[in-house]
Amino acid sequence: MSHPDVKYFPHLRKQLFEIVFGTETRAGKLFDIILLWAIVLSVLSVMLESVKEIRESYDSIFFVSEWFFTILFTIEYLLRLFITAEPKKYAFSFFGIIDLLATLPTYLTLFVAGGSYLVVIRSIRLLRIFRILKLGRYLREASVLSNALAASRHKILVFLGAVFTLAMIMGTLMYMIEGGESGFTSIPRSIYWAIVTITTVGYGDIAPQTVFGQAVASMLMLMGYAIIAVPTGIVTTEIAHAEKQQKKSESAARKCVACGKTGHDKDAIFCKNCSAKL
Amino acid sequence: MSHPDVKYFPHLRKQLFEIVFGTETRAGKLFDIILLWAIVLSVLSVMLESVKEIRESYDSIFFVSEWFFTILFTIEYLLRLFITAEPKKYAFSFFGIIDLLATLPTYLTLFVAGGSYLVVIRSIRLLRIFRILKLGRYLREASVLSNALAASRHKILVFLGAVFTLAMIMGTLMYMIEGGESGFTSIPRSIYWAIVTITTVGYGDIAPQTVFGQAVASMLMLMGYAIIAVPTGIVTTEIAHAEKQQKKSESAARKCVACGKTGHDKDAIFCKNCSAKL
Amino acid sequence: MSHPDVKYFPHLRKQLFEIVFGTETRAGKLFDIILLWAIVLSVLSVMLESVKEIRESYDSIFFVSEWFFTILFTIEYLLRLFITAEPKKYAFSFFGIIDLLATLPTYLTLFVAGGSYLVVIRSIRLLRIFRILKLGRYLREASVLSNALAASRHKILVFLGAVFTLAMIMGTLMYMIEGGESGFTSIPRSIYWAIVTITTVGYGDIAPQTVFGQAVASMLMLMGYAIIAVPTGIVTTEIAHAEKQQKKSESAARKCVACGKTGHDKDAIFCKNCSAKL
Amino acid sequence: MSHPDVKYFPHLRKQLFEIVFGTETRAGKLFDIILLWAIVLSVLSVMLESVKEIRESYDSIFFVSEWFFTILFTIEYLLRLFITAEPKKYAFSFFGIIDLLATLPTYLTLFVAGGSYLVVIRSIRLLRIFRILKLGRYLREASVLSNALAASRHKILVFLGAVFTLAMIMGTLMYMIEGGESGFTSIPRSIYWAIVTITTVGYGDIAPQTVFGQAVASMLMLMGYAIIAVPTGIVTTEIAHAEKQQKKSESAARKCVACGKTGHDKDAIFCKNCSAKL
Repeated sequence: MSHPDVKYFPHLRKQLFEIVFGTETRAGKLFDIILLWAIVLSVLSVMLESVKEIRESYDSIFFVSEWFFTILFTIEYLLRLFITAEPKKYAFSFFGIIDLLATLPTYLTLFVAGGSYLVVIRSIRLLRIFRILKLGRYLREASVLSNALAASRHKILVFLGAVFTLAMIMGTLMYMIEGGESGFTSIPRSIYWAIVTITTVGYGDIAPQTVFGQAVASMLMLMGYAIIAVPTGIVTTEIAHAEKQQKKSESAARKCVACGKTGHDKDAIFCKNCSAKL
Repeated sequence: MSHPDVKYFPHLRKQLFEIVFGTETRAGKLFDIILLWAIVLSVLSVMLESVKEIRESYDSIFFVSEWFFTILFTIEYLLRLFITAEPKKYAFSFFGIIDLLATLPTYLTLFVAGGSYLVVIRSIRLLRIFRILKLGRYLREASVLSNALAASRHKILVFLGAVFTLAMIMGTLMYMIEGGESGFTSIPRSIYWAIVTITTVGYGDIAPQTVFGQAVASMLMLMGYAIIAVPTGIVTTEIAHAEKQQKKSESAARKCVACGKTGHDKDAIFCKNCSAKL
Repeated sequence: MSHPDVKYFPHLRKQLFEIVFGTETRAGKLFDIILLWAIVLSVLSVMLESVKEIRESYDSIFFVSEWFFTILFTIEYLLRLFITAEPKKYAFSFFGIIDLLATLPTYLTLFVAGGSYLVVIRSIRLLRIFRILKLGRYLREASVLSNALAASRHKILVFLGAVFTLAMIMGTLMYMIEGGESGFTSIPRSIYWAIVTITTVGYGDIAPQTVFGQAVASMLMLMGYAIIAVPTGIVTTEIAHAEKQQKKSESAARKCVACGKTGHDKDAIFCKNCSAKL
Repeated sequence: MSHPDVKYFPHLRKQLFEIVFGTETRAGKLFDIILLWAIVLSVLSVMLESVKEIRESYDSIFFVSEWFFTILFTIEYLLRLFITAEPKKYAFSFFGIIDLLATLPTYLTLFVAGGSYLVVIRSIRLLRIFRILKLGRYLREASVLSNALAASRHKILVFLGAVFTLAMIMGTLMYMIEGGESGFTSIPRSIYWAIVTITTVGYGDIAPQTVFGQAVASMLMLMGYAIIAVPTGIVTTEIAHAEKQQKKSESAARKCVACGKTGHDKDAIFCKNCSAKL
C-alpha cells in the first residue's frame, strides 16, 4: 500500500478522518470508545497470559486474541496513514510511533520467543482517553505539570547525580564494613542497597548486621530522609511558578474586541476598560 | 413505621430533636457522648472478636454485645427519622446513609456468614466528634484541606494515571528481565511489585535478584523518589491558595454595619473607614 | 532539705548560680560542658548495658557507673533548687521536671526491676547544648519550626484522624479478603499492616498473597503516596508564613531612637527616615 | 619534584595549562574527555573486582588496570602541580585534594589489604563533567540548590537533633516492650529500628510482634509520616527564597552602559530607561 496523496478519494478520506481522528461526531466518538476497549482487552489478555495457571487452561484463546487484536491495530494504523493529509507527519508524531510500536511485538514473536510481552506498550495508547473525554481541564493540568517538570529538569538532574555519587561512596563503604556478609556480597550490590535505603524503599533483602554497619546505615537513612526534601522543594517552587504563568497567559488571552484591553479576570463578562461584552 | 409528618406530636418531637440532633443543651451533649462511647465500644468489640484467642474465650459476650449495639443503633436511626421535620432529606444525607449502613451488617449475618466485620463502617460515625466538641477551628481546617484537595483532584488524577502506566510498563519489563524468578511469577504480580517500589513502600516480599534487574529497580526507585515531589508540589500550592482564599472570604465576611465597608482584619475592633465598632 | 529563702547565703548562692545556671563566666561554661559529658556517658552506659555480651563482661562497672551518675545528678538537682531564688518556678519548669525525672529511674530499680532503662530520659537534658553554644541562630530556627508546627497542629490532627479512619476500614477489608492468611490473623493486626503501608514504611512482615489483596494493597499504597503530600503541604505553607512573621517582628523590633520609625532592614545601619545611626 | 616557579618554562607551562585545565581549545576538550573515561573505567574496574565470580576469572587484568590508572592519575596530578602558577592554591583546593586522594588508595594496598576499594573516591572527580559540558545552566541550578541547603542547615540540624532524640526514647521504649524478642535484642539495635521506622525505610529485619509493640510502632510511623513534612517545608521555603534572590541578583547584574540603570528583565534587549541597546 503506497502512501496516498490528498488528490485521491478526497471525500471518502474526509469522512473517515472525522470518524478515526475526530471526536466531534457520534461515529467518531463510538470509534474511539471501541478502540479504547480493544486496547484494554488486548493489554489485559497479555497480562493474564503471564499467569501460569490461566495460561495452561486457556492457551488457544490467548493465541487467537493476540493475533486478532494485532491485525485489528495493524489495519487501524494503515487506515490512519491512508486518510491523513500528511502521512509523514503522523508517522513521526508521538502517537504515530506508539501506534506502530503497538502492532510490532506480536509479529516479532514469529522470529523471537517472549517478544509478546512488549505489547504492554499498547497501554500508552490509553492516553488518548483524555482527548475523547474532551477534558480540557485535564490537558491544562497536564500542561502545568509538564511545564513545571521541564523547568526543574536541570535541578533534578544535578540532584540525581549527587544522590547517585552518594550511593556509590556509601555502598562501597558498607561493602568494606560488612565485609561481604549479610547480602553485601559485591560493590554493585552494595550500591543497589544504598539506593534502596536513600530512597526509603527499604526492601530488607539486604540489611546490615554489624553494629557499625547499622550506625552508618542509620546516618544514610537520616540523610535520605532530609534529602527527599530537595526534589520536593524544587518541584513545588516550579509548580507554583507554572501555575502563575498559566493564569497570566490565560488572562492575557482574553482581549476586548472593542478597545483591545487584555488581562481580564477569568470570570469577567464585561471589559473592565470600556464595558463592552467580552 | 411510616414516615411521620410534622403535624403529629410537634412538641415531643421538638424536645427529642434538641436532644438527638442538638448539642447546645445538657441533655443533647450527654446523648452525643453516650452515643460516641457506644460506637467506640461496638467497633472495639468487633476488632477484638477477630483475635482468635479472645474470640474462643468470650464468644457469647461478643454475640450479645453485637446484637445489643445493633438494636440500639437501629432504634436511634428510627428515632432520628421520626423526629426530623424532613425525614427524606436526613435519610439521603451523608450521615443518614452512614447511620443506616452502621446497622445493616449484623442483620446481614443472619443470611451471610462473615458480614459482621462490615460494622467497622460504624467508625465513620465517630466523625460526629467534631460537631460535639464544637471545634469550629477544626471544621475550618478541614474545609481548607478539602478545598485544596478538591482543587488539585484533576492534577492528582493525571499524576496517578501516569504513575500507573509507568508501573505497568516497568512491571512487564521486570517480568521479562527476572524471567519469572524471585517472586516475579506473572505480569500482574510484577506490576504490584512496581507499585510497591515507586511508592517507596518496599515490602521486600518480591525483590530482584539478577544484576540487571537490580539496576532497573534502582532506576525505578530514583524515579519514584523524584516523582513523589509532584503530588506534594501540587497539594502545597493548592493549600497555600486555599489558605489565602479562606482568609480573603473571612475578611470579606466582616462588614461594617455603619458604612458597609468590608475587608476588615480578623482582629480589627473598629471599622477602618468610619471608626464604628464592628 | 527545706526550700531555701533568698535571705540565706545570698553571696554564695549568687556565685553558685552563675556557675550552675549561667554560661557567661569561664566556670559556668566548664560546669555545663562537664555536665553534658556526664549525661552522654550515663546514657551511653545504659545503652551498652542492654547489649548482652557487654553486660556479661562488665556487669559491676555498669552497676557502679549507674549509681555514680544518679547520685551526681541528684546532688546537682538539689543544688539547683537551693541556689535559685524561686525554687518552685524551677521545679515546675520544663527543664526542672526533666532534671528530676533523670534521677528517679535508678532509685526505682530498688523496687521494680527493669526501671533502669528509663534513664534514657536523661538524653532530653542534652537539649541544654543549644544554650551553652549560645547559638541564638539555632533558637531562632527552633522557634520558627515550633511556631509553624503549633499553627498547623489542628490541620495535622484532622489529617491524622482521617488517616487512622482510612487505616481502620482498609485493615478490616484486607482481613476479610486475605481471610486470616499470610499474617492478616486479626483486625488489629490488619490495621497495623494498613498503617505500615499508608506511611510507606513497608516492613514486609505482613504482605498480601492473593491477587485481589494485592490489588487493594496497590490502591492503598497509591493513596498513601498521594496523601503524604497533605502534611507536607500544610507544614510548608505554615513555615513560609512563620518565616515571614519572624522577619516582620524582627524588623518591627528595630526602632530608631531619634524619630521612632520602625521596620528597618536587618542589615540597615542608619534610620531610613531621619538618617540617625541605629 | 620541587614546586616549580612561574619563571621556569613559562611558554610550555602555558600551553599545557590550556590543555589540562582549560576546556576552550580542542586539545583541552579532548584531554578532559579522555580523563573522564579513564575515571569511569577505573571506578568500574574496582566495582567489578568486588564481584567474586568476575574477580576469580580476570584477577590479573584487575591488578594491571588498577596500577595503570593509578600511575596515570599520579602523573596527571604532578603535571597539574607543575603547570599551575600557584601550586599551593591548587593543592589545597577542593579538586586538588580529591585528585590527590584519588591516587593514594592503590599505594595504600602495598601496606594494608583492602584499601583498594577506597579508589571509589575517584568518582567525585566525575563532577568535572559539569565544567566540560560548559553547562552554565547546571552550575546556576547547583548554586540555587546549595544556597538553599546552606540557608536551611541550622533548621535541618535542629530537626535532625530532635528526630534522633525521639529515636533514642522510642527505641528504648520498644526494647522494654518487646523484651529483647523479635530482633529488639539491645537498646542500640532498637534505636536502629526506630530510625529505620521514622524515616519510613522499613527493612523489616526487625519488626514488633506483640500487640502493644505494634501499637507503639504504628504511632511512631504516623509521627514519622507527619515529621517528614518538616525538612520538606524548610527546604521548599528556602528554594523559593534562593530562586528569588538569584533572579534579583541576575537582573541587578544587567546594567545599562548608557544611563547606568539596573534591574532589566532577563530577556530585555533595550534599556527600559533610555532605550540604549544592552
